[in-house]
Amino acid sequence: MSLREDSLKIHKDLRGKIEIKNKISVKNFDELKLIYTPGVAEVSKEIAANKEKVYEYTSKWNSVAIVTDGSRVLGLGNIGPEAALPVMEGKSLLFKTFANVDAFPICLRTQDTEEIIATVKNIAPVFGGINIEDIDSPKSFEVEERLENELDIPVFQDDHYGVGIVTLAALSNALKVVGKKFSDVKITIAGAGSAGFGIARMLKTTKTSILVVDSKGIISAGRKDLNKYKQSLLEFTNKENLEGTLKDAMKDSDVFIGVSAVPNLTDVGMIKTMADDSIVFALSNPDPEIDPEEAKRVAKIVATGRSDYPNQVNNALVFPGLFRGVLDAHVKKITEEIRLTVADTLTKLVNENELNEENIIPKIFNKNVVLSIAEAVSNAVKSKKC
Amino acid sequence: MSLREDSLKIHKDLRGKIEIKNKISVKNFDELKLIYTPGVAEVSKEIAANKEKVYEYTSKWNSVAIVTDGSRVLGLGNIGPEAALPVMEGKSLLFKTFANVDAFPICLRTQDTEEIIATVKNIAPVFGGINIEDIDSPKSFEVEERLENELDIPVFQDDHYGVGIVTLAALSNALKVVGKKFSDVKITIAGAGSAGFGIARMLKTTKTSILVVDSKGIISAGRKDLNKYKQSLLEFTNKENLEGTLKDAMKDSDVFIGVSAVPNLTDVGMIKTMADDSIVFALSNPDPEIDPEEAKRVAKIVATGRSDYPNQVNNALVFPGLFRGVLDAHVKKITEEIRLTVADTLTKLVNENELNEENIIPKIFNKNVVLSIAEAVSNAVKSKKC
Repeated sequence: MSLREDSLKIHKDLRGKIEIKNKISVKNFDELKLIYTPGVAEVSKEIAANKEKVYEYTSKWNSVAIVTDGSRVLGLGNIGPEAALPVMEGKSLLFKTFANVDAFPICLRTQDTEEIIATVKNIAPVFGGINIEDIDSPKSFEVEERLENELDIPVFQDDHYGVGIVTLAALSNALKVVGKKFSDVKITIAGAGSAGFGIARMLKTTKTSILVVDSKGIISAGRKDLNKYKQSLLEFTNKENLEGTLKDAMKDSDVFIGVSAVPNLTDVGMIKTMADDSIVFALSNPDPEIDPEEAKRVAKIVATGRSDYPNQVNNALVFPGLFRGVLDAHVKKITEEIRLTVADTLTKLVNENELNEENIIPKIFNKNVVLSIAEAVSNAVKSKKC
Repeated sequence: MSLREDSLKIHKDLRGKIEIKNKISVKNFDELKLIYTPGVAEVSKEIAANKEKVYEYTSKWNSVAIVTDGSRVLGLGNIGPEAALPVMEGKSLLFKTFANVDAFPICLRTQDTEEIIATVKNIAPVFGGINIEDIDSPKSFEVEERLENELDIPVFQDDHYGVGIVTLAALSNALKVVGKKFSDVKITIAGAGSAGFGIARMLKTTKTSILVVDSKGIISAGRKDLNKYKQSLLEFTNKENLEGTLKDAMKDSDVFIGVSAVPNLTDVGMIKTMADDSIVFALSNPDPEIDPEEAKRVAKIVATGRSDYPNQVNNALVFPGLFRGVLDAHVKKITEEIRLTVADTLTKLVNENELNEENIIPKIFNKNVVLSIAEAVSNAVKSKKC
């Protein structure tokens, strides 16, 4: 059978990839009166007297809402909340598999920014964290920023900083392999959606030279079509104020990072114009910006978002351990220090002696990934660094 | 240890009574690509093309939101969403234990009627049904009616029709035991909150004579303090337009039903003024309107909401089987026909030859309850009765 047929069949057989599991059984009235009325009233009274105790007596401490409005799901576009649900269930399954986090899919009927924010705020009491997923940008930035400011639980947009963190980690190792430093290289990012922003914002900390290119060309001061988010990129990218196309940007670049969702956006010819020992991250899924085998003919290091090629740069390396860490440490906000701690941990998970062109980032099924990230986040929080 | 200490300890040890369970394991990339990207995209495309398929390929078919704003939780009053969470988790646990329904607690930050309605509508895509719980009346009626009209999934307010259904079932059997008929008896309901309304509305179908009494006295046409919901009770109760106190109402009544949340609201003296072979349902929890042993000295049949006396009239007899039935039958609305079917099924679950003063309703842990109700609902829907 084809992937399509296999996937439809398994989903139809399962009728949902997740379910609720009771952590205790109730077989008689003596058990019932402890976990339900009248006994549960004592627990409610404790929490009513001190709200923070909700973390001690309920599932809130380990519970995450996976929130989407279905406006930009995978490469499928605006397919709505129902069609987004199997993806969010899949994400929930990964949360549980990798990090024992209880993540519940919340697929919203509305695609209005204010309604999304109001709805998430209203349902927040039962969750210990919010994972924003597959909301179109720039709306997703507004939703993320507002919720981060207005909620007292950590908020994370996986398509944004999740991609940014894993890309920074992989690129740190790639540069080591080719013997270059962030301070000396030029980086071109193709795509100015959530992923492009997340990568640019994480790379900002390295003081490297960055150009961001969207469908209209290099993001530069002279452009009249930039929203406030793209404008903000000019604070730390394109310091020479270059104008032009992706082709112009790539010339002499050391690194190309594609998060454009445009198959075949670049080609061997353009990569040839890059600096020696070029690094190509063609991260769009399922169809990268260039066929990775083609790219490998001219680039020194090639990475994709796919599992069937070496160097899979995938945010599934980030969100399970990150949430495990912030939930365990009871963090109210995911700070830049925490994001950098996660990136640094991921980088170091590949030992120097194992590091090579085809091994710049750990594998998703490596169990050390979640453990190491969660521990690093906890330690960072404890040592007051965050 | 006391109930309080036991209950706090078990809740602290568990740190949440429910969790997410994966219905399939993912151990490698071959499995991952079927249930997550890229394979899951095929499922999303199927649902995007035909929204109804969300019931075939996701957990929606078996998923219920337990929605509360924490404004009237158990006998504790307005304790807010965090303190309500252990109760809603307990309810989720009962849903799963009794009926294999996956029910997720949604405890809302807002207590505003319009915000509650908007929020539930926004999160509805992932749920196959809505269970409204512990919202103060009359707000709860507005929320229930509006959601019922504006959503395409079944909406049920357990404190309302759940209590109404189980009370109708128990009373049908109680009347059989004392050899009376609905058409000949007078019934006094003490309490005009969600439960009082649910009981009155279910009893309406029996054409019996009903008086509803709230804290100000008998609900009668001359009163100036009635909201539109209490006004509506006059369409089918108090046809003789009696005015007066609970004491006046109970005189010559055949049945007293207490859902007032007021301990010791009535006494032996008042019950003595009732008709012969009187029936006393003192249903408030944990403290009934009269000590059931006291009541039994003068009444023929006594029922409570408690598990430690005979005749436990508890809505846990209703919601698991009812939701199992409506989810299985993919019902869009819970009609009066369905409610009456459930009540009738519960009544008949006590065989005529087992029926006696202390056995008018089945026990909660009787496994036939859920199976019978779910089957009866399915059959009723199939036979187009509903």
